[in-house]
Amino acid sequence: MYQAKVYVNYKDSVLDPKAEAIKTALTRASINNVQDLMVGKYFELRLTADSQLAAEQQVDAICDQLLANINMEQYRYTVSAIDEVQA
Amino acid sequence: MYQAKVYVNYKDSVLDPKAEAIKTALTRASINNVQDLMVGKYFELRLTADSQLAAEQQVDAICDQLLANINMEQYRYTVSAIDEVQA
Repeated sequence: MYQAKVYVNYKDSVLDPKAEAIKTALTRASINNVQDLMVGKYFELRLTADSQLAAEQQVDAICDQLLANINMEQYRYTVSAIDEVQA
Repeated sequence: MYQAKVYVNYKDSVLDPKAEAIKTALTRASINNVQDLMVGKYFELRLTADSQLAAEQQVDAICDQLLANINMEQYRYTVSAIDEVQA
């Protein structure tokens, strides 16, 4: 069993409306010491696979096809083996 | 300077429509080896603060007021000191 942790966020070139909205809210709440803010999506998947490589390849395909809009978003992930019991 | 990494996701008692939609899409794509899927929001903040404790307290307040809907969502975060240069 493998566990994948996937992070998806807008490419640097894309203006993130959610981040802008939160920055505005922070300013309104007089919170002025937040220098930078990044907003993204986070996924955890548990999957069975024949090998670490097979698990990574599948996670990459799932990111590409389902979890990220690759025109505007970028993704990164980690894949680690976990015990069946822990699963 | 401190960096906070914040994870927000639905409480276990709340049905997550996004997760359900992705599970359906996985099934349609004949991807049947994904045993479990969790969907959440991920934030990275950089903030100045007088101390680690002060930074943690502020991040907690920001989560509570802005980043999570505490009726339906739960959040966790890590806060670590970072060099000014790295910032």
